Amino acid sequence: VVGRAGGSVFLLTDYGLADEFAGVVRAAVSRHAPGVAVIDLTHDVPPFDVRAGALALVRAAPHLGSGVVMAVVDPGVGTARRAVAMTVHRSDARDRPRHFVGPDNGLLVWAVELLGGVERVVEIRRSARSSEETTTFDGRDVFAPAAARLWQGASLDALGPELDPGGLVRLGEPRVVVGHGALEVEVLWIDRFGNVQLAADPRDAAAAGLGDDLEVRAAVECPLRRVSTFAALAPGELGLIVDANRHLAVVCDRRSAATVLGVQPGDVVTLRAVTPGRAP
Amino acid sequence: VVGRAGGSVFLLTDYGLADEFAGVVRAAVSRHAPGVAVIDLTHDVPPFDVRAGALALVRAAPHLGSGVVMAVVDPGVGTARRAVAMTVHRSDARDRPRHFVGPDNGLLVWAVELLGGVERVVEIRRSARSSEETTTFDGRDVFAPAAARLWQGASLDALGPELDPGGLVRLGEPRVVVGHGALEVEVLWIDRFGNVQLAADPRDAAAAGLGDDLEVRAAVECPLRRVSTFAALAPGELGLIVDANRHLAVVCDRRSAATVLGVQPGDVVTLRAVTPGRAP
Amino acid sequence: VVGRAGGSVFLLTDYGLADEFAGVVRAAVSRHAPGVAVIDLTHDVPPFDVRAGALALVRAAPHLGSGVVMAVVDPGVGTARRAVAMTVHRSDARDRPRHFVGPDNGLLVWAVELLGGVERVVEIRRSARSSEETTTFDGRDVFAPAAARLWQGASLDALGPELDPGGLVRLGEPRVVVGHGALEVEVLWIDRFGNVQLAADPRDAAAAGLGDDLEVRAAVECPLRRVSTFAALAPGELGLIVDANRHLAVVCDRRSAATVLGVQPGDVVTLRAVTPGRAP
Repeated sequence: VVGRAGGSVFLLTDYGLADEFAGVVRAAVSRHAPGVAVIDLTHDVPPFDVRAGALALVRAAPHLGSGVVMAVVDPGVGTARRAVAMTVHRSDARDRPRHFVGPDNGLLVWAVELLGGVERVVEIRRSARSSEETTTFDGRDVFAPAAARLWQGASLDALGPELDPGGLVRLGEPRVVVGHGALEVEVLWIDRFGNVQLAADPRDAAAAGLGDDLEVRAAVECPLRRVSTFAALAPGELGLIVDANRHLAVVCDRRSAATVLGVQPGDVVTLRAVTPGRAP
Repeated sequence: VVGRAGGSVFLLTDYGLADEFAGVVRAAVSRHAPGVAVIDLTHDVPPFDVRAGALALVRAAPHLGSGVVMAVVDPGVGTARRAVAMTVHRSDARDRPRHFVGPDNGLLVWAVELLGGVERVVEIRRSARSSEETTTFDGRDVFAPAAARLWQGASLDALGPELDPGGLVRLGEPRVVVGHGALEVEVLWIDRFGNVQLAADPRDAAAAGLGDDLEVRAAVECPLRRVSTFAALAPGELGLIVDANRHLAVVCDRRSAATVLGVQPGDVVTLRAVTPGRAP
Repeated sequence: VVGRAGGSVFLLTDYGLADEFAGVVRAAVSRHAPGVAVIDLTHDVPPFDVRAGALALVRAAPHLGSGVVMAVVDPGVGTARRAVAMTVHRSDARDRPRHFVGPDNGLLVWAVELLGGVERVVEIRRSARSSEETTTFDGRDVFAPAAARLWQGASLDALGPELDPGGLVRLGEPRVVVGHGALEVEVLWIDRFGNVQLAADPRDAAAAGLGDDLEVRAAVECPLRRVSTFAALAPGELGLIVDANRHLAVVCDRRSAATVLGVQPGDVVTLRAVTPGRAP
């Protein structure tokens, strides 16, 4: 132990909260790093949905303080997929996570790049793993001990051999096609309130020449109006806002826009400008 | 920073646990107030249900130690509704929360009054807000930084201009009508076990002249017996207890009394004394 | 207070996360033991399911650091069932929980025995309970204060009179019948992913003469193959693995084996060796 890196250990998994999985990981981190503050980001990523986990991590990343992020959505547990630990390029901002730990399946890399990029990455060696390890609960047996060691100030090199960051597994980029008066865009996320986050941001809407009066085509086609707050919408009306992650999102006031549109994450929807006076 | 107010930051929201909302708020509080202990009261208040959140806060309040309560159930986010921070009248009990932070929509005021009343209240100014703020996630951008500053010892005045406590938004008081041999009363809460908490307490039952043998009228009418423990009830029998918040509650042993009665929060039920020997 | 026992207070309950029950317990522990780290193992044990809670505690126990375990799954709250606090036999491992607190209904004793056995047990006296106590929320009023006192270094004797460990309530042992070429075994647990944990371990399978090609009989009868990772299975194929708790478990790759088999906890399934060349 070189000296405490300090901060928190942030957890994001698909373990759910009904079983004791998340609790055992919290306990394992605390046991290996007494005094650590463990902060749950969420444990309810849909089972095995690496993409949903990666997107949640990207949304959370700019708001995390210093410390270590441990993320586990890992359908490949027990296979040859690598366990990795990364250091984020040191930026001016000191109160950002310095390390990310998790499976090499695309879960971590977007968030790390958002925070400054991968400075170094190592494969977590078995010899650095717990003696209790099995092949089905790497969160407890591999990632928690590694996160704890990094939190305590261990260097990446203590965990395993260096890898080429260019060889990290990556997920496909979300679909965004900017047309003339139209924007074809992937649904990234449906939140608890039914808000539909899109892969595009306001610059994409501007590039497509979209104004305030729009229509959105998914399973159904609906009018859509640019607004700045939920409360500006009439009951049942769909609005397009810039959400808290600076993405475009289709929303409804106190109702689920996702239900109105009949969409789920991964679907592609099209936003179109409505031409005033357009013939029926 | 004047000096640490100390204690914990207690969180109550309707953000749910499936998304990373609650996790980002935990992280934001910790980032703005390193070393703070964040304690989740619950994040599963039904979406937009300010009344349910206010009642949960009242039930929890007497059991909280020192620190800051941050509560967010906020259908009006992004509108002109005010963001407020309050100080609780200092009482003899030092181990009680000193500050409450949240929207001015009735969510906080009952709990603050239970603990001693509003000593002072300020509107949280935009200038005291985070530079990352948007209009859809005030929990992250407005309330978490404010709670962190108060936890660190900042004074209310550092957050914004003082308001008249008399102008705070209030929710309607729960319905309780004490009659002769009858008590008409609002259902406040159905808990996980199906226990039906009523707005009345044992003094209301005494004032209505209710004894141990009763009937309750809701969607259905059922016999009801005053008991002191769940285990005193026969299978399927309904009992009236004094619950852990000193409210009257209709309960069933290891079954949902709410399902038996067919009620939900906000419904009004009537308890009546059964006259021995009453004609059919 | 003798001096801090230190470590964490670990919580396991059936309170769920929708209500504020778990939050109030977290707050009560923190209020009675300022500075404590509270770690949730889970609050989503199925309501009143003492057996499920006891099994979750056994699975978690080997991975907990030092401190106090407080567990509450307590259908008998308010009855004559005893509230107990136990000390675990001191073993060589210092980083294990030293105390367990909860109802005397079988919830705690398996985990305590796994960690070294019951050194001493006391009944938590009413006089050691909070003045706010009621008969329906012992987690808040009895167990949280007791756990906090033990965490602060109080001795068991400060809580109440000693009991005979032999008189503790015990649950029935899970069913495991080792035959010739067959293993009849109870389903202990279905996890979030649908994995079916069995009461047997690899030694039981060896004793029954089971090899790699098997069949499992439950509601349906299916082929079953010994594998070491989920990924070794074809889509929809059932596998038998040694899981993260060193139990045998029936699994499916990215699907629910429990749904395929139609089983739930408490069911008994039979594993049989398949005789090569067996007539149809």
